[in-house]
Order: sequence, then C-alpha cells, then structure tokens
Amino acid sequence: VRSKLYDTIILGGGVIGCSIAFNLAKKGQRILLLEKGRVASQASSAAAGMLGVQTEMEENGPLFELARKSRAMFPEIVAELREITGIDSSLIRKGMLKLALQEEQIDECQSILEWQHSKGEKAVWLEKEELLQKEPCLSEKILAALYFPNEGHVSAPDLSNAFAKAASYFGTKIREYTEVRSLIKDSGAVTGVTTNGGDFYGDAIVVATGAWSGGLLSEDINQSTVYPVKGEALSVKAEIPLLTRTLFSKGCYIVPKKGGEMIIGATSRAHTFDQKVTVEGISYLMERAKELMPVLAGAEISSMWAGTRPMTNDGLPFLGQHPELQHLFVATGHYRNGILLSPITGKIVADLIADAVHPEIDLTPFSPTRHRNGQEVMLR
Amino acid sequence: VRSKLYDTIILGGGVIGCSIAFNLAKKGQRILLLEKGRVASQASSAAAGMLGVQTEMEENGPLFELARKSRAMFPEIVAELREITGIDSSLIRKGMLKLALQEEQIDECQSILEWQHSKGEKAVWLEKEELLQKEPCLSEKILAALYFPNEGHVSAPDLSNAFAKAASYFGTKIREYTEVRSLIKDSGAVTGVTTNGGDFYGDAIVVATGAWSGGLLSEDINQSTVYPVKGEALSVKAEIPLLTRTLFSKGCYIVPKKGGEMIIGATSRAHTFDQKVTVEGISYLMERAKELMPVLAGAEISSMWAGTRPMTNDGLPFLGQHPELQHLFVATGHYRNGILLSPITGKIVADLIADAVHPEIDLTPFSPTRHRNGQEVMLR
Amino acid sequence: VRSKLYDTIILGGGVIGCSIAFNLAKKGQRILLLEKGRVASQASSAAAGMLGVQTEMEENGPLFELARKSRAMFPEIVAELREITGIDSSLIRKGMLKLALQEEQIDECQSILEWQHSKGEKAVWLEKEELLQKEPCLSEKILAALYFPNEGHVSAPDLSNAFAKAASYFGTKIREYTEVRSLIKDSGAVTGVTTNGGDFYGDAIVVATGAWSGGLLSEDINQSTVYPVKGEALSVKAEIPLLTRTLFSKGCYIVPKKGGEMIIGATSRAHTFDQKVTVEGISYLMERAKELMPVLAGAEISSMWAGTRPMTNDGLPFLGQHPELQHLFVATGHYRNGILLSPITGKIVADLIADAVHPEIDLTPFSPTRHRNGQEVMLR
Amino acid sequence: VRSKLYDTIILGGGVIGCSIAFNLAKKGQRILLLEKGRVASQASSAAAGMLGVQTEMEENGPLFELARKSRAMFPEIVAELREITGIDSSLIRKGMLKLALQEEQIDECQSILEWQHSKGEKAVWLEKEELLQKEPCLSEKILAALYFPNEGHVSAPDLSNAFAKAASYFGTKIREYTEVRSLIKDSGAVTGVTTNGGDFYGDAIVVATGAWSGGLLSEDINQSTVYPVKGEALSVKAEIPLLTRTLFSKGCYIVPKKGGEMIIGATSRAHTFDQKVTVEGISYLMERAKELMPVLAGAEISSMWAGTRPMTNDGLPFLGQHPELQHLFVATGHYRNGILLSPITGKIVADLIADAVHPEIDLTPFSPTRHRNGQEVMLR
Repeated sequence: VRSKLYDTIILGGGVIGCSIAFNLAKKGQRILLLEKGRVASQASSAAAGMLGVQTEMEENGPLFELARKSRAMFPEIVAELREITGIDSSLIRKGMLKLALQEEQIDECQSILEWQHSKGEKAVWLEKEELLQKEPCLSEKILAALYFPNEGHVSAPDLSNAFAKAASYFGTKIREYTEVRSLIKDSGAVTGVTTNGGDFYGDAIVVATGAWSGGLLSEDINQSTVYPVKGEALSVKAEIPLLTRTLFSKGCYIVPKKGGEMIIGATSRAHTFDQKVTVEGISYLMERAKELMPVLAGAEISSMWAGTRPMTNDGLPFLGQHPELQHLFVATGHYRNGILLSPITGKIVADLIADAVHPEIDLTPFSPTRHRNGQEVMLR
Repeated sequence: VRSKLYDTIILGGGVIGCSIAFNLAKKGQRILLLEKGRVASQASSAAAGMLGVQTEMEENGPLFELARKSRAMFPEIVAELREITGIDSSLIRKGMLKLALQEEQIDECQSILEWQHSKGEKAVWLEKEELLQKEPCLSEKILAALYFPNEGHVSAPDLSNAFAKAASYFGTKIREYTEVRSLIKDSGAVTGVTTNGGDFYGDAIVVATGAWSGGLLSEDINQSTVYPVKGEALSVKAEIPLLTRTLFSKGCYIVPKKGGEMIIGATSRAHTFDQKVTVEGISYLMERAKELMPVLAGAEISSMWAGTRPMTNDGLPFLGQHPELQHLFVATGHYRNGILLSPITGKIVADLIADAVHPEIDLTPFSPTRHRNGQEVMLR
Repeated sequence: VRSKLYDTIILGGGVIGCSIAFNLAKKGQRILLLEKGRVASQASSAAAGMLGVQTEMEENGPLFELARKSRAMFPEIVAELREITGIDSSLIRKGMLKLALQEEQIDECQSILEWQHSKGEKAVWLEKEELLQKEPCLSEKILAALYFPNEGHVSAPDLSNAFAKAASYFGTKIREYTEVRSLIKDSGAVTGVTTNGGDFYGDAIVVATGAWSGGLLSEDINQSTVYPVKGEALSVKAEIPLLTRTLFSKGCYIVPKKGGEMIIGATSRAHTFDQKVTVEGISYLMERAKELMPVLAGAEISSMWAGTRPMTNDGLPFLGQHPELQHLFVATGHYRNGILLSPITGKIVADLIADAVHPEIDLTPFSPTRHRNGQEVMLR
Repeated sequence: VRSKLYDTIILGGGVIGCSIAFNLAKKGQRILLLEKGRVASQASSAAAGMLGVQTEMEENGPLFELARKSRAMFPEIVAELREITGIDSSLIRKGMLKLALQEEQIDECQSILEWQHSKGEKAVWLEKEELLQKEPCLSEKILAALYFPNEGHVSAPDLSNAFAKAASYFGTKIREYTEVRSLIKDSGAVTGVTTNGGDFYGDAIVVATGAWSGGLLSEDINQSTVYPVKGEALSVKAEIPLLTRTLFSKGCYIVPKKGGEMIIGATSRAHTFDQKVTVEGISYLMERAKELMPVLAGAEISSMWAGTRPMTNDGLPFLGQHPELQHLFVATGHYRNGILLSPITGKIVADLIADAVHPEIDLTPFSPTRHRNGQEVMLR
C-alpha cells in the first residue's frame, strides 16, 4: 500500500532542499520534504552567508558563472521571501575586501583583478591608505586590498528559514525528524523512499542532503565523493560600528552583520562529522581576527558554533538528473557556497523536474556521475 | 572634578531611552546613555510589539491621540533604522481583530466602532462567517469581531536594538552595567548623576527607566506613582501558517510574527518585580489560546518569558520637563504601550531638550507632577 | 585493510551502551563506542530517572524480577561511578506513592499490594489522612495511596554521563558524531561496522541504539519490533520544599529532585521520532500536576523537553546474543526503564561477551528473536 | 506600619548571604533574605570554587588563618548540605600545584614551602620529572611545582544553591528580585530596609551584597572601599581525563571538575561592573592554558562567562558588627575567596548575631571601619 503520492519528494531540509521545494511548490507541485532533524539547521544555519563570487572563486570556470548568476538573483528572491513569510534575510551589499597581507598576495590580487575586469565584474585596487580611509579599524599591517563593491551577504539562518516557510506557504509538507534509510527502486527507476516514519512515494526524488549525501547513494556515487569538512566560527559584537565591508583573507574572514554583529570564520577540517567547538579552532580565529582588526580585542563574544560543509573531490557541486536511476535528481556538494548558490540551484532543479526543461546553464560540469568517466582524481 | 561633559544624559536603555538618544544624537547632541543591565532588554524585549491603537485604547482621550500619531510614524522610522543599522524591525500591518466571545462584548465592540469611525479610523464589523473566512483556524465559539485593518506589530527586541544601534551610529556613548544611584543637584537644577561607575555631568538629564523609575525620583514623585506590572508570555510555532491578523481578547492576545511564530500574551500581576515564568501564568495563557484557536494544541513551544511593565496610577505615561527640578526630563510609565509610543516619545523629548520647542502635542495630561494638583485618585 | 581492532564495538552512547562499555572496559577489554550524536543524550537525558520497580510494573513476571535486581545495584554502582568520575548521580531513595484518584484504583492498588507483599517487597497502604500527613501539599481529592518506601530515583543525565566517563576512564574509545550505516558480515558472523567515519572491526558488536535500533537490523529484526514512543516533560521549582516522595498516577508523575526541582512527566505518543515540545503536551502535564498538587500553580518553570523511548511489541527489552548472527549482541527496547535497568543490563551483556558466562538470569523472555517463534502478536 | 518582623534580614543572596542565612535559620531565627536578582548567581556562580588556602595566600596573616579554618569545615558542611537538600557540592580534594615557569618562581615557591611547613601545612616540592609523572599532560616547559595535597575545590554554583536551599529548609524566607534602596535608621540603630517591594524590619541587618556593597553604606564606608573586579573564565572538556590536580600559575589556573570538565580562569579588571565576555579575555586564557597543557588545544569549549568579585583596599574582607550603627553587621569584600570563606563567614556572623558570642577568631583585622584609623593606604 502506497502511503501517499507526491509529485516530488525532497530529501534534506537545508537551504538547497528548501529552495527547491519553494520553487517546485510555487509551480503547483505537491511536495514532500523530509528532514532528519530540523529544517534550516546544520551547514545552512552555520554559514556566514557571504555572497562572495569574486572574492572566493580564484579562477574562471563553470562555478564562477553559476555563482554570479545566483548572486544576481538575491535582491529579487529576498524581497519575494520577505513578502511571503515576513522573514527578512538581511541582504547587505556593501562589498568585500580581499586583503593582501604579504607581498606575493599583491600579485595574486592583481591577476584576479584582471580576469574579473575581463568578465565585466567590478573590482577596485585599494592601496593601504585608501583602504584605511574606507575601513579605519583595519590593521596597519595590511598591505592593500582588492575591493569588490558588488559582493554582499545575507543571514544564512534567515534565508534558509524563509525558503522553508515559503515552501510551506505554497503547500509543501515538511516532515522533520524523519530519517531516510534507502531509496525504493522499481526497474531502474526510483519511486520512493523508506524512512523511520514509513515509506513515501513520488514521481521524482531529489537528494539534497549535503554532507550526509554519501551514504544514501553509496551504490551509485562512491561514498567518498561527497565528504564533510568541519568549520568552526564565532560571532562578536562591538559597542560602536567597526566595519562596513566584509574582510576576506586566507584562513579568516570577518562579515559585518546587522546591528554591529560580526561573524568570524572559519576553520576547515576535512573528513569529520564532529561538531564540537574547540579551543584550537576558536583561539586560531580570534588570533587571526585580531591581526586584521586589533580593535576586536575589546569586542564581546556572542556565540560560537561548528558546521559541516559538503565537499566533493573537484570542489564542484553535484547538480542534475541521475543518468542511470530514473526520476532521481541530485543537488548537493555545495561546500562553502550553499547559501550563495541556493537561488539558482532551486530554480535549475525545479525547471528540470517540473518543466523537463533543459536549463540555459550547461550542467555537464556538475554531473553527478562525472567522476566515473576515467577521471581518476575524482574516484579515490 | 567633572569626569565628562555631555549635552544630555539618558537614564535607561529600553526602547524609550534609546529612541530619545537616537533623536537627540541625530540632532548633533553629545549623548550618554546609562543602562544598569543590557540595552534593549527587560520590558523592551519582552513586549509582543503590538501597535494596537484602536484595539487597546477603549476610550477617546490624550493617550489615543498620542498613540495614533506614533503609530503613523512607524513605516518611516522602521525604514530609517533599517537603513542605518541593517536591523529590520519586522513591521507587519495586517490588522488586528478584537474578538467578541460573549454577547455583551458585541455591544461594547459596536460602541467602539462608532467612536473610531467618528475619529476617522478604519474599523470593520465582522460576523462569525466573515471572520472564519478571513481566519479559518479561529474557534467556532467566537461570536464576531471588530477588525482594525490599520493596526499592526513590530518585533519589540529588534526595534529596541535598532534604536540603540542607530543612537550609537550618531555618536551616543552607551554604558551598560551602570547603575544610577542618585541625581546630582545644584541650586534647584539637576546637573548630573552618581553611578556605580563614577559621576557624570550633562546639561539635561532624562529619566527613562521604566518600572525602575520609582526609586530615583522618590523625593519628587511618590514611589508608588510608577509601579511594576509583571507579564508572562510565550511563543509558539506551527508547521503551516495558521493566522494572519493579530487576535485580541480579554486576557489573551495572539500575534502572528514572521516565519509562522506566534506570541501569546500576557498575564498581569501588579506590584512585583519578580520575573519568574510560572506554571499558573503559562497554563492560563495556553488554555486561553486554545479556546481562541483550537489548532494551537499541536503547535510547538518556542520560548517563554516574563517582563515588567511600568504602570502609573492613571494609566498615562509621564512625559515632559520636570516643573521644579531644572534640566530634568521624564519619559516613563508607558505600561503596555512602550513600543507603540517609542517613536513619538523620542521625538517629543528630543524636541523639548534640543530645540526648547513646545511640541504640537499638549503634554499637560502627561505631566510628571499632575498627581500633585489635588487629584486624589493619582496619589494613593 | 582493517582500520583498528577492538574487542567489542558498542553501537549507541545512551545509558545502556555506556553501562555495557563501562562493565567491559573494567574487565580489561578494548572497547569502541560509536554514537551518532553526543553521548548521554536523547532518552538517557530526557528520562526522569525513576527507579520505579514496584510502582511501574503492574504484574509479576521476568521484567519485574530483572528490575528489582537492577534497583538493588544502584547504591553500589552510584558510589563507584562517583568515586571514578566525580559525578554524583543524585540517588534519592525516599519512596514512591502510587495515587488512587478514583474508587476503582483503590481496588487495583490493593491487589498490587498483595502480590508485592508475596514477593517480599515493602508496600504500605496510606489512607488520605496519613497521606496528607506525609505530603501536606497533595490535593484533598486524592483518595489514598500505595506507598513503596524502597523506590527512588537518580538524575538520568548524570548517571548516563557518569557511565560514559567511567568507561573512558577504563580506556573506552568514544567516537561521537559517528553514524553506523551497516553491519559488516563474514560467513554468518558480524565482524564490524561501516560508519560515516570509516569501517571498524571488533570481536563482538553490541546494538544499544534505543529507538533507533530498528533500521540497523532490518534484515534480522523486523523494523517495527523496536519503535519510538515520544514523551514530553517539564521541570519546575518552588521557593520552598513541597514534596518528598515521588508521585505516580495514570498519565502523570512528579519526581522531587535535588534542590527543590520537580520533574513532571510524561506524555506518550507512539511511532514518531518528532521531538517538538508542544502546547498540547505541556498544558496537559501542567493541568494534571495541578490536580495532584494545587500549590504547583505558583511554581517556576525551569525547562521543557521531549525524548524518544524505545518500545517493543510486548513491552520487554531485547537482551542477549543473536542466535543466528554470530558475535552480535543486542541490548535495546528498554522503553521507560532504561535508567532503571542500566546497571543489570551492563552487567549481563558484559558477562555474556567477556566471560561467555550464561548469566544467572534467564534471558529467554528477552531473546532478540522471541518474536519469530510463532508469536503473531509480536510480528505485526 | 511595620510590614513584618524578622529576627535578621540578610541583604544579598550570594554564597556568603546564604551561608549566614543557613546558620542563623538552623539556630531557630526567623530570617528574611533579600536578593536583587536570583540567589546563587553573580560571583557565587562564576567562581571556579577553588579551596586554595596554601596556593593563593602568599603570606602568613589573618586571612591565611581564617581560610585554613574554613577549608577544614568543608567535608562536614558539604555532607550536611547534601543530606538536607540533595545537592552535592562536588568537593574534590586531590591537591593543587603551584607551577614554577621561570627560575625566579622556583625561589618564591621554596620560601612559601618553608613557611607552610612552619605552619604545619603539607607542601611537597616536585621536580619536573615527578610533576610529569603525576600529571603527564603538563607542558615540558614547566620547571617544577609546589604541591599542596590538602587543597581542593567544590562546585561554586552547587555550594551556593545548597546553602540557599538549606536556608529555605530551615524556614528562611527568600525574596528574589528585591532591590534594597536604603537602610532604615532609628536613633543610631538600623531597624530595617526600604526595598522596591516594601519596607522590612528586623532586629539585625546583615550586608552581604558583595561587589554591590558600596552604595548602600556610602555614608559609613567610603564607596571605594569595596570595588568590583571583573573576571572572565571558560570551561572546556576533553574526551579522556587529562588532569587530576588543580593547576595554579600567575594569571591562569585550571581546575579539573567532575566528568572531565575543566575550568580555566581568570582575568582581572578592576573598577568595572561590566559582565561581557570578550575576545581579549578568552583568547588570553586559552593561550595561557595551552602553554600549561598543550593537549588542551583539542578540548571542546563548554561555556564562557564573566563575574564580578568584591575587592577591598587591603584585600581583606569586611567581617563583623558595625561599631557605630547598631544592629548592623557586615560580611562582604571576599574577593576571590568567597566560596572558600563561606563556611566560616556564615558561622562567625551567625554566632555574633544569634548568640552575641565573640568568636574565637580575632575579627579586628576584618573590621568594617579599620580604614578610618589613620591608615591612609586604605582610604584613597
């Protein structure tokens, strides 16, 4: 007996799963979203919410193209979600500063500047003096910076929650505390899932389970092709405004959030699901942050946390239809870019499923089976 | 030796004190705000944030006039604060429903309807059927409702924080954990304050210490003229949106916040500073809320809290200059209307202090010494 | 390549898994304990910690025998754990009162009294007057009570933590945030487990995963044979001591913890892993608690929570060696008795594994495959 | 009209006030304890609970004598409080290590060793090798240590709560959220107090308000004679036991609590009531702790907090009857030794008040007016 029929069942209630649910439900689909814990938690609430297309992508390529398309969608999607749910995702677009702390980083930045300009993106070189004029609390030790005025950030927990609530608004059934144990297959097609709360059937199944995607598809995608990277972060606040633009340097970023809050992130430790906040991680981040902004010594610590990013072997997410298992779609492995890529991922996957439309974007580089085609690097 | 000279020293970092600080600092004044704990806490963060001018004021009078002027200021002030601080105060203007649960309340509502209309305010009578059409989750037992489409609500903690941060942005020095012990007086004028962190001097002193205002002015205002009224509340959330408009009934209101959160409030117990959340208070609120919306039984409890409202003997706040103590201003006793009245209170007091302008509004009914003029009712 | 060799690998870091780990490690075994979240959480920290052998077991049988043996072990084990870890489990043995609120319950209690006496257990019948003398804050509406002076309670989180820490002290390697995906089998024997942190091998494997045990053994034990029963509870405290003995009635118990704290529990909802604290659950408990002790209306609410008990079809836990899969042991399905049964469960399983000793206790009624032997009731 | 008559009114619900209340109530007195917030909070719950008589007192004198008498009272008082309240204060007596990190500290330690021996106290010199044998996780950089095997520690919050609950048990009326505004005096005698909850009268009044004592007695004791010293601390935990004895070094101590928890403390900043946890404070403590125990880098951070210690100009507490204001007693200014001195302070003050007994201990050095007698150092 089939317990219930849905158009699409989405596995994973993070920002990716919720964005897909929102997009599909808005198109009129009956959606079931299954989440093993609470929606909008884990990496989706641990993220600093940077929309760092130019700052984070160090080379041209399909991810850069995808990311800048997604970044452009934020003003509209944030307004729409706010209209529907009342939740404001705190989109702030005051730019990011890629800091040069050593001589060699100056050259790196200069070369980044060039290809960014060639792609038509705004990027401004700031000598120390100009930098300190814009951001007077920065350390004198910073040599210069590359300034990307169009970058910004959102509140990751708010955006994720807003996607979830907007999906509910359009009729998505969200089941929290529901663990998916296995895919139900029928002659080469995936028709449903077995969970700790019963079996559910749908015309399409989407895997959006982030760092926890490995186990489910173990027969299809080698377990190690999506792996966890632990990150620790903390949040501090100062009595007066200290920073306007996001700071980005190797191993430490500082994101100036609303109300004077600043998120300092993030450590990276691969291959662990551990979520403990450690002396090592937090003391490292505090030392680095004080180097960038000595005045932070006096800041108040608000909170500390750890999250688990879903990494892939080539750093690109898995996006698209599974070529062998019919009705199965994959949207995972977004690593540090889950928040940034959530608008476009939701749109692409919803278009693929509901409209069977081949998206304008070439998904080949993000194919969930790209690792099989003789690319040994991917398969280890 | 005078430790520091300020234009104005504000005592109390609640929504009233912070709004005054913001208004004065924007005019260019050097402001010191002293707060015994943390800013934007106590009643300012415990409030449900209702902007219930028509719903709460049961009769015409100076408070009604003050309140509707203040309500009208919200769209602009919320936008301005958001621009400056990034903090969105979640202004939602979807109306409030004054519920009639018993026959006699129908008559009351009808008479309210009439004087509201006579004041040019929108008010719509909804028979049960219309009511349930608008809000399908309401109990069948509700007989009818008076609908005020222009009422709304904000996030009280966010608004309070936004005022504080905007005040800081314009240069206000905020000192938390600073307890004021006494006023420093010099030949009939107040010139400063003694605190646990030293003495501070200013050209004007504003008392905005809410329920804690009694002790400070004990020689001038009888201690009992501002007294505490404890209120308990809780917050719940449902999986799907259950409510669009705020519900208001005797002894229980339900405010639909962003993201499906609903605040259920509030008990009232006078003459205690106790802030314990009790079995009695919370079980009362839950029973009442289930009466109004039976579906709330399945809602998840998010949090519970208690706060302390500053009440006066005639229910009106104290607003204005002290007639005997020069340079002393008072803005306290806002009871349940602190959030609602914060924009206009900030403006009035700032105008009085910085510009020595007599505000358009007649402050006589709010005089801090109105109790002395033979009005026995006030003095008990 | 085998990543590491352990004598025994224990799956599940609740009170049962930790007690087994402690017992085995003390015998000198190299133990690995795998826990998907944090140790000593879930049901083990949600429990009220009652040691209610006589109060809870309504009939003679193997569970009653097992439970009273386990209850007798508490004074010694609590002292030993405290000596090793410093953690005091707050064993309080001041008795429990099974309350009669209706006439028919008086008869029930009388019949319980008789068989308890026949088993040599202390049980005293208290008429209303005697009851109110012992516990003056009880409601006048309670008709009488059965008093079991030898019952008591511990702090469930403290006991669970103490077992975990004592296991560590004897060398147990505890890996948190490690999810077991499947058993590794080799010609009819279980040799290890596959986890999200790699594969681990051991000479014996113990399943102690509580309500989450179903999925793992799905080929061997039908999924539905261990199922979750959600329970909600709250904790309150009074300014003065209100209660000395634990109260037990249908649908509501009140456990007087150290320092005047009282735990009020617990609702029961089968077949859900949901852990939300609901209006329904908490308001039910508060109403029931006020019926038993009207004075609780004034108590302060400390906290609220939900937990997931592991239930079986016949209400008995699964204890012992798996008859078909070699090297596999099971200790799960303890329902409401996990804390109470933890000392004896740890001892039995450790004896079975380390010493291959057949315990004095007949484990047949607790056999993990008892459901197969034509007992249709179990298999549905 | 006198609202109520008590034998003794105690101002302040910290560990000192609660210990006095407990001692007096046990003697049969009717006690009222007034606390402006919650009992057992502030410094009493922020303390690490060290019983560091030999470790902390660097010279012989009245404080050393008082402290060692108090330390000796712990086993009995902790057992008694546990018997009454069920709260175990986690008394652990495994000694403290005063670490020598530099050559000059070796000489200091040696001289301390001598006078400790002369006072009959146990103290053992440990060369690096012996030290590392006892505590293998200590840094190789530590040169040597002075070992005091009789020192120990308790859980400060548990002890404070236990005193409060035991006081309640003996009938003490505890009023929380009650702020004392002034002493009521009648011809040279203190007869009561004015509070935000009304006036209260008693035969004796005890000031035990810690860092907040200054304001109340401002006419009698110069405000600056009890001043706040802010301290920040954090708590970490390791997977396996790392430390058995308390470590004490200049600017950083590490206290091994039950269950593997370790408290790392504490910064010192005088003359502020601020309670913010800062980047500066916590990063300093983490760097120092890693120097002493490099393995702590991997420890998990549990929590962070700040507290406010009450300091006096000569570092000695104020203890005893006020020589000018009749019926007024003082017990404040215990600085870092509040927990350690709570048993003896409670006993001394209770004996003075209830039995008018001159205690065996000479209180002259602790006189609340000792600063007046020409000791210029004290008065500034």
